[in-house]
Amino acid sequence: MKPFRSLIPRAEAMNIISSSITPIERVESILLEDSYGRIIAEDVIATFHVPPFDRSAMDGYAVKAQDTYGASNFSPKKLKFVGVKHAGECFEGEVGPGECVQVATGSPMPRGADAVIMVEDTKKVDDYVEAYHPVYPGANVSFKGEDIKKGDIAVRSGEHLSPGKIGAIVALGISSVKVYAKPIVSIISTGSEVKSLGSKLKPGEVYDINSYTLTAIVSANGCIPKNEGIIPDDPEALREALRRAVQNDVIVISGGSSVGTRDLLYDLVEEMGEVKFHGVHVKPGKPTLFGVINEKPVFCMPGNPTSCLSNAYIFLIPALRKIARLPEAEPRTVKAKIGARIVASSGREQFLTVKIENGIAYPVFKKSGTITSMTNAEGYMILPINIDTIEEGEDVEITLLE
Amino acid sequence: MKPFRSLIPRAEAMNIISSSITPIERVESILLEDSYGRIIAEDVIATFHVPPFDRSAMDGYAVKAQDTYGASNFSPKKLKFVGVKHAGECFEGEVGPGECVQVATGSPMPRGADAVIMVEDTKKVDDYVEAYHPVYPGANVSFKGEDIKKGDIAVRSGEHLSPGKIGAIVALGISSVKVYAKPIVSIISTGSEVKSLGSKLKPGEVYDINSYTLTAIVSANGCIPKNEGIIPDDPEALREALRRAVQNDVIVISGGSSVGTRDLLYDLVEEMGEVKFHGVHVKPGKPTLFGVINEKPVFCMPGNPTSCLSNAYIFLIPALRKIARLPEAEPRTVKAKIGARIVASSGREQFLTVKIENGIAYPVFKKSGTITSMTNAEGYMILPINIDTIEEGEDVEITLLE
Repeated sequence: MKPFRSLIPRAEAMNIISSSITPIERVESILLEDSYGRIIAEDVIATFHVPPFDRSAMDGYAVKAQDTYGASNFSPKKLKFVGVKHAGECFEGEVGPGECVQVATGSPMPRGADAVIMVEDTKKVDDYVEAYHPVYPGANVSFKGEDIKKGDIAVRSGEHLSPGKIGAIVALGISSVKVYAKPIVSIISTGSEVKSLGSKLKPGEVYDINSYTLTAIVSANGCIPKNEGIIPDDPEALREALRRAVQNDVIVISGGSSVGTRDLLYDLVEEMGEVKFHGVHVKPGKPTLFGVINEKPVFCMPGNPTSCLSNAYIFLIPALRKIARLPEAEPRTVKAKIGARIVASSGREQFLTVKIENGIAYPVFKKSGTITSMTNAEGYMILPINIDTIEEGEDVEITLLE
Repeated sequence: MKPFRSLIPRAEAMNIISSSITPIERVESILLEDSYGRIIAEDVIATFHVPPFDRSAMDGYAVKAQDTYGASNFSPKKLKFVGVKHAGECFEGEVGPGECVQVATGSPMPRGADAVIMVEDTKKVDDYVEAYHPVYPGANVSFKGEDIKKGDIAVRSGEHLSPGKIGAIVALGISSVKVYAKPIVSIISTGSEVKSLGSKLKPGEVYDINSYTLTAIVSANGCIPKNEGIIPDDPEALREALRRAVQNDVIVISGGSSVGTRDLLYDLVEEMGEVKFHGVHVKPGKPTLFGVINEKPVFCMPGNPTSCLSNAYIFLIPALRKIARLPEAEPRTVKAKIGARIVASSGREQFLTVKIENGIAYPVFKKSGTITSMTNAEGYMILPINIDTIEEGEDVEITLLE
């Protein structure tokens, strides 16, 4: 059993990871209805004007603006009602002087009209419409190309497809788009005592928690989890599993990187690629190893469920989002008072999970091996290395977990 | 064309919606690997202790604590190395006085040992291990049930399945869970000028933007969109579409609730159920109608793409999340300086979209009919009714759009 060579600070670990990964280049075509949240991989250029014609922006009457000048509640202008041009209903004539045509929002402007007077400013009396308000030329008209001009880039490559951006693509008549593929993340569990759900535990065995928590983290951050199963702590089996896994974009292994498993993974990653660091100055999660094989990042997470998951929050999520080209996660933070005295005894930066009740943050961290340290957590605080004690009631900042 | 009866404020509209909807009761069973983000519909009760046995919480040596008392760097205690009990490796003997057994994190405690000394505090010398630090009884041991006790409720009905909660369910050997079903949301577009993607536009026609933006909003908020297509502005066709749609949990119709379409939907909702309000004091989005048919909420959104989508952000998302039992959305806000003078001329509460560059919020709102008012938006500010003018450079709070 070799102890860790030297622990590096969290920030340095994050920098090493960040400079070892690259955003995905693979693209795929998908239907627009499935595109929400994806990253578009092409500029969307307008091949026609939106709207493609001048149209009414209001429900009302299309008029020649000058026919309304001087109108008021006391002296309305009378306009001859000559037809209806609802969307889908036809008025093929022309609006002449002193005339009006009923239009709805979205109706194409009838020829001859240059403005729309809102229905609220009118009253229909027999064959006439009384206009109570003047309108200027162009009033309540949406002009051809006002929304998107032919030739404009409506959505740019690399943008995150929000409902509003999807809407612009629909407006341009485009039904499928090229997006960056979701990175595929191989999830490997190791450990002879770790068993899949469905099997009956023998004495000394536990269920494989990490592949499930990692699956959730991976899918919540724009990637596709690929569960590779539980691999025994055996060099040949692990080598074979790694060889398979590096076909994918990211490899996450849990267990096996703790000192106790005889540096098996360390040696394997070093043999097949390069170990970038082993051991981080954080608690929980010290025995984290990161390396690169065939330009694919390999994260070896601690086997303890809470260590594995808290390291996934700290290290894996930012990496996955960068690879998937998603915007950085910006978790919400809240101010709270700490509900118990904290003695930071580890000498490492500490990821302390808490639940929050009435503005008071109560620590729920038990031990790295207890999943309930995460199950019951609503958020966490990071205790810096140089803090020794936080007294009950002191103000702290909590980062909320989603 | 009837004008609106009376406009109600946004807050009142939200209260009416909120008191007209109920959280979904339908449940379904799903596999745990698909459960991230779902709302569990049962208490998960532990049928055994987690961990199911006493185990080592560290890599090191299992010892009788009293054999280490008095150990220090200058006078280590020598312990006889009698075996290895890695996870999966067998040591079936007992740790006797003055003896130690090598253990890894997660290894069951060997009989006779009551503590674990960390590998960092030891040195192996031939058949002996030198202990440089005393440990107390129970040190570095995770006791049976320390994580979850048999009979405990590990996850409670109604909780949102985070990675940490999924982890606890795995620990208990449970592979499928009962969750609340995702509400099914019927999305209907209306308007004879509105055409599906794939069809060629004739003069005066536009593509159906709203069903796509609404699909994105619905799926991003824990519901399943069900696109019912484009229904012509015809009472019989709309009645039939509504009759079909109210089989689902929520109905969202876009277009048709503007004054211009002759109150068709108003009359239909009134005929089949009850109109709760029609017309809200917001810009854009005034002509919004909300009603209930067969206890199913019916949202009639304005047909203008930006009005429809901004109303979806304001009214639909909170309603969908409540029905889906999701926690309330808590959008992030940022402080910015406004990049242009704003004159709030509408007399209505105004939803003003902006993009943010270097801390300055530039309005991108053009007109309700232009989708790019949303496409280019990174966030929005709400101008209260009583604000007339905001001068360039004033401080504003921007709610970010996701």
